Amino acid sequence: MEFKISKEFIHEVKKLIQEKNDHKLEVILNDIHHADIAEILDELDFDDATYIFKVLDSDKTAEILLELEDDLRENILSRLSPKEIAEELDELETNDAADIIAELSQEIKAEVISELQDVEHAKDIVDLLRYKEDTAGGIMHKELVKVNENWNVLTCVKEMRIQAENISRVHSIYVVDDEDRLKGRLSLKDLLTTSTKTAISDVYIRKLNYVNVDAEDVEVARIMQKYDLEAIPVVDELGRLVGRITIDDIVDVIKDEADQDYQLAAGISQDVEADDSIMELTKARLPWLVLALLGGFITVRVLGLFEGAMLEHGNLFFFTPLIAAMAGNVGVQSSAIIVQGLANDTLSGSLFNRLIKEVSLSLLNGVILATILFIGSHFLLNVEVVIGLIVTVALISVIVIASLIGTFIPLLLDKFGIDPALATGPFITTSNDICGILIYFSIAKMILGF
Amino acid sequence: MEFKISKEFIHEVKKLIQEKNDHKLEVILNDIHHADIAEILDELDFDDATYIFKVLDSDKTAEILLELEDDLRENILSRLSPKEIAEELDELETNDAADIIAELSQEIKAEVISELQDVEHAKDIVDLLRYKEDTAGGIMHKELVKVNENWNVLTCVKEMRIQAENISRVHSIYVVDDEDRLKGRLSLKDLLTTSTKTAISDVYIRKLNYVNVDAEDVEVARIMQKYDLEAIPVVDELGRLVGRITIDDIVDVIKDEADQDYQLAAGISQDVEADDSIMELTKARLPWLVLALLGGFITVRVLGLFEGAMLEHGNLFFFTPLIAAMAGNVGVQSSAIIVQGLANDTLSGSLFNRLIKEVSLSLLNGVILATILFIGSHFLLNVEVVIGLIVTVALISVIVIASLIGTFIPLLLDKFGIDPALATGPFITTSNDICGILIYFSIAKMILGF
Repeated sequence: MEFKISKEFIHEVKKLIQEKNDHKLEVILNDIHHADIAEILDELDFDDATYIFKVLDSDKTAEILLELEDDLRENILSRLSPKEIAEELDELETNDAADIIAELSQEIKAEVISELQDVEHAKDIVDLLRYKEDTAGGIMHKELVKVNENWNVLTCVKEMRIQAENISRVHSIYVVDDEDRLKGRLSLKDLLTTSTKTAISDVYIRKLNYVNVDAEDVEVARIMQKYDLEAIPVVDELGRLVGRITIDDIVDVIKDEADQDYQLAAGISQDVEADDSIMELTKARLPWLVLALLGGFITVRVLGLFEGAMLEHGNLFFFTPLIAAMAGNVGVQSSAIIVQGLANDTLSGSLFNRLIKEVSLSLLNGVILATILFIGSHFLLNVEVVIGLIVTVALISVIVIASLIGTFIPLLLDKFGIDPALATGPFITTSNDICGILIYFSIAKMILGF
Repeated sequence: MEFKISKEFIHEVKKLIQEKNDHKLEVILNDIHHADIAEILDELDFDDATYIFKVLDSDKTAEILLELEDDLRENILSRLSPKEIAEELDELETNDAADIIAELSQEIKAEVISELQDVEHAKDIVDLLRYKEDTAGGIMHKELVKVNENWNVLTCVKEMRIQAENISRVHSIYVVDDEDRLKGRLSLKDLLTTSTKTAISDVYIRKLNYVNVDAEDVEVARIMQKYDLEAIPVVDELGRLVGRITIDDIVDVIKDEADQDYQLAAGISQDVEADDSIMELTKARLPWLVLALLGGFITVRVLGLFEGAMLEHGNLFFFTPLIAAMAGNVGVQSSAIIVQGLANDTLSGSLFNRLIKEVSLSLLNGVILATILFIGSHFLLNVEVVIGLIVTVALISVIVIASLIGTFIPLLLDKFGIDPALATGPFITTSNDICGILIYFSIAKMILGF
């Protein structure tokens, strides 16, 4: 039931563009969902994509604009005049329009805003531009249905009809006082079953969830998920109703947050996609790699400290990548579990209990792995028993230390208000590499006395 | 506006439990949202939690049950009789009830089902138990409003009133034929503005999105996000309407999928949380660690091959953790970007273009990092120029190879229908460790000729 783009279809579209057969283009694209047209445009070159964009109606192209990949949208917008861009934005919901304006350069921004036809809509958009992207204000839209507590049911129904015209999904009717302060909400059912002369103040529900305009978007997502809400009203510092956030806005927040944690864990410091430019990808990837390289310098120096062992016990050095890798892997596992626990708010119990648990867990894992290592070093790697023993003892110690570092660094970062997801990935791997190698050779030195 | 659990409140609750003051307990908990009560129960011991559970009404406790942490729910359910569990389930939506039944042991399951009071509800639940957890059937619920295409508007409105009683959010009215096959949907607005004698077949919308009952849950999530749907109907092999999926069911799917990719990237092979038991955590963590350890054995053997270099060029061995770490980090970055691209369906362009891009990107990163390494090895690490040169050349080669491995292994896995997220984490790190060390020493051997 989903539309699948075929090569033949793309070919047909390209041919019609070449022939400048605007009418047929409109006809074949008319029945296709705007999300699918966005995918078709992604398959065309910029000129052809812009051509189609100019052929279709602005109520359709406005929706398409939202679904395009960033670089294609940027490119198409750069080929439209401020007036043409304003025509697109007039068709969009306030928050979508504000998101697109935010991507424009400073000069064009002002021109586009001045070209907006619907003054109320323009006011709302300008209003939304003031809020930071990752706050309730940054994700809310202005479209909502509100009624005054002093009205009666009849006035209310009339007003609602007017307001609801521009809103795709009503969800809730909010009740405000003369100062626009949020007082409660109305259920559609109550409204329809009550006499038209009843005062709104007699029927509305006073208990409702709301968020402040400065609340973090992830916090809003958490509350909406927790209380299973499809929409939540947003109020300003004075308690005035300024907007509404719906569940589909939140889906993006949840997805972005989880994706971002994953990227940080993989050592990618900015939100990038595979199709971004090489410069953008380098900017996102290089910082952690430089850090890891500097960490690598330290491992070189640490190994240099134990140069004395090289003559007699050279094969100790064969095990350094193994020890370092195990330290890194264990650390990343521990930190990932804590980072997700913090993100999903599922951590309970005291720090001391967590310490005991992590030590037990890592001891259990460490002993199992060390046993495999001891047997393997004897039968597969043919090293002397004393070296096997040193590596085994070192592995257990390294696993315990690495899992403690992996557990407590994210907790510490969180305490200081830093995103704990920063701790996973190359940062933990690198510091655990260094610690692991240091512990390993120190144990070797103690036992062998070089 | 969110309820915050205070220590005093928990203390008060515990006191009331000790005093067996059921009435007061009911009064103070009555105004609190079930999601908040679930959090309160998480703070109590199992006995106290069960006590509260038995004090409250089953319409409230049923909702609480859904919000509890897994182990507490399991524990409370084990203290309830099959009849008591059935009372809870009678209050829940079909899919929530089915999820809870699926957690019960085989014997209790049958007893609980036989105790369900509402026969229709019981049938629906049993029906849902048949579908696999991660399919459309596994996440859909049976609650929906459907009307027959042969009815007229009046019959339709009457029937709807009856059906809608048990449904919290209607979203859409589905139209079926006599065989229950999905034919289309009705908008509430059309229904209200049409004469009551009009036949449904004259007014319903024939074009609608639906999914097959066997569709993967992540696929359903993708379609609902793409087309911005709040609900989607589910049909069986014969096209019969069997259920409905709403956006809040999908939020969990999206979150779980992203969390799972992150866990796989961190080398955790099962869905675990920080508060799971040590055995569960070990089961999730040990497999990848054993794999990494076996990979470590290979690095030991590889290094052993180059033992000849130890006498004259021992400091080559100091750089092995650095080279291995860089290979691992680069590989994880590349694979994470591809895995997310595959998950979000944002990869475009040919394999050849991707190859060119990845080589350019890694060459750029490699040259920058190698420059830092060359300068650093000279001034910070004081190694001979020839060693510095070897390490530098090796680093560039290793970075290019590692990023190619990181890019193409997930693409290959995806081609063969294996979850590409498996490729990130320890698997990529380990294979890149081995390749990196092999490349490094091979280059050294070529240049130094040991």
